[in-house]
Amino acid sequence: MSHQSISQRLKELGITLPEPPKPLASYVPAVTAGRYCYTSGQLPLRDGTLVAEGRVGDRVTIAEAQEAARQSCLNAIAVAAQVAGGVDRLGRVVKVVGFVQSTEDFHQQPQVVNGASNLLQEIFGDQGQHARSAVGTNALPMNASVEIEIIFELVE
Amino acid sequence: MSHQSISQRLKELGITLPEPPKPLASYVPAVTAGRYCYTSGQLPLRDGTLVAEGRVGDRVTIAEAQEAARQSCLNAIAVAAQVAGGVDRLGRVVKVVGFVQSTEDFHQQPQVVNGASNLLQEIFGDQGQHARSAVGTNALPMNASVEIEIIFELVE
Amino acid sequence: MSHQSISQRLKELGITLPEPPKPLASYVPAVTAGRYCYTSGQLPLRDGTLVAEGRVGDRVTIAEAQEAARQSCLNAIAVAAQVAGGVDRLGRVVKVVGFVQSTEDFHQQPQVVNGASNLLQEIFGDQGQHARSAVGTNALPMNASVEIEIIFELVE
Repeated sequence: MSHQSISQRLKELGITLPEPPKPLASYVPAVTAGRYCYTSGQLPLRDGTLVAEGRVGDRVTIAEAQEAARQSCLNAIAVAAQVAGGVDRLGRVVKVVGFVQSTEDFHQQPQVVNGASNLLQEIFGDQGQHARSAVGTNALPMNASVEIEIIFELVE
Repeated sequence: MSHQSISQRLKELGITLPEPPKPLASYVPAVTAGRYCYTSGQLPLRDGTLVAEGRVGDRVTIAEAQEAARQSCLNAIAVAAQVAGGVDRLGRVVKVVGFVQSTEDFHQQPQVVNGASNLLQEIFGDQGQHARSAVGTNALPMNASVEIEIIFELVE
Repeated sequence: MSHQSISQRLKELGITLPEPPKPLASYVPAVTAGRYCYTSGQLPLRDGTLVAEGRVGDRVTIAEAQEAARQSCLNAIAVAAQVAGGVDRLGRVVKVVGFVQSTEDFHQQPQVVNGASNLLQEIFGDQGQHARSAVGTNALPMNASVEIEIIFELVE
């Protein structure tokens, strides 16, 4: 992977970045600051619809929530690429925080957020190895099952 | 706004920054690191009293929670200004995280956290455009309805 | 403390850093980026067992949760030291986020997270003064009572 650009890698994986979702309110989808890019928390929206809605451990399965984490992550990559000036300007993935809407007795948030982490490793390889927090929550915007935010280091 | 300082802008808006609230425990209200300033999570305290208490979607309305988000944000600006050496040393707003104490079926956390985001845009203009995560939670310190943390980039 | 290294300070305090816990999934325990080190969210694991399990305000006492916060913090220091090239490369503690698994009517998250903050101050002295957010949550991985993540500034 070392000599391959991220855009080539996406093509090889057959992944098309989604249109960056519009923010739901008075903020922007991502910001660059120095050599870093911070994304806003991304919901699992695909073509305007949530991939998974409701709490995990109840009506939403782990597999469905993993797919939601993957979609949220795709959206995060898309918004970061947009403000950074293209996906090839995204270098190291520094940090991921994954909020999982959970029932009180659901404790497998790490497995859910793997939907995002695995995608990052697929696309970014060694550069995709990130620090991460996975936590549960009782409520998320739009009743989404997952919300993901990412800090990227930019290629200089 | 480009040639106006933040302190002038605050005066023009008729906004007086509050006395920085004391931290509740063994940490400090804000820290500068390199060109960034990280605030501690700020509660909606005004003159020592919470602007809104309890969960949103239940006894607390969206309008009340927005006011709480605005107050938390004011407190965050105040503590950042204190450690940065004045409000005019605060440049770009990089990231806001808003935790909203929510009932399980309340999903409008973004609207609540707009109370903070709108204030940042009012005060900082284009520099106030930030990345943001808004999440729900079942419990917050002191039973506050909102907790807000901010990362600022400092003026060099 | 000014002329004492962190490793000397740990020895003086009789604190041995734990073996860095393995991550639960497809990510790494900590990442360095520029002059910063971001840890993954750390659970209160000691020799593979959780120090405190379940929600605070119910079956878990504040004292037990503080001990869990302390253990999570020790684990965070251990993983940061590992990727940074030794504990003496950890400089200023910039930011701590503490998630506390809470009942709806438990509002003393700051007191719980003091278990981490106090340890940081004990070990790092003035350099241990950090910004912090303490929030409640209804569910955490493995049913842990506490999850702690830290940003350190590295010694140049």
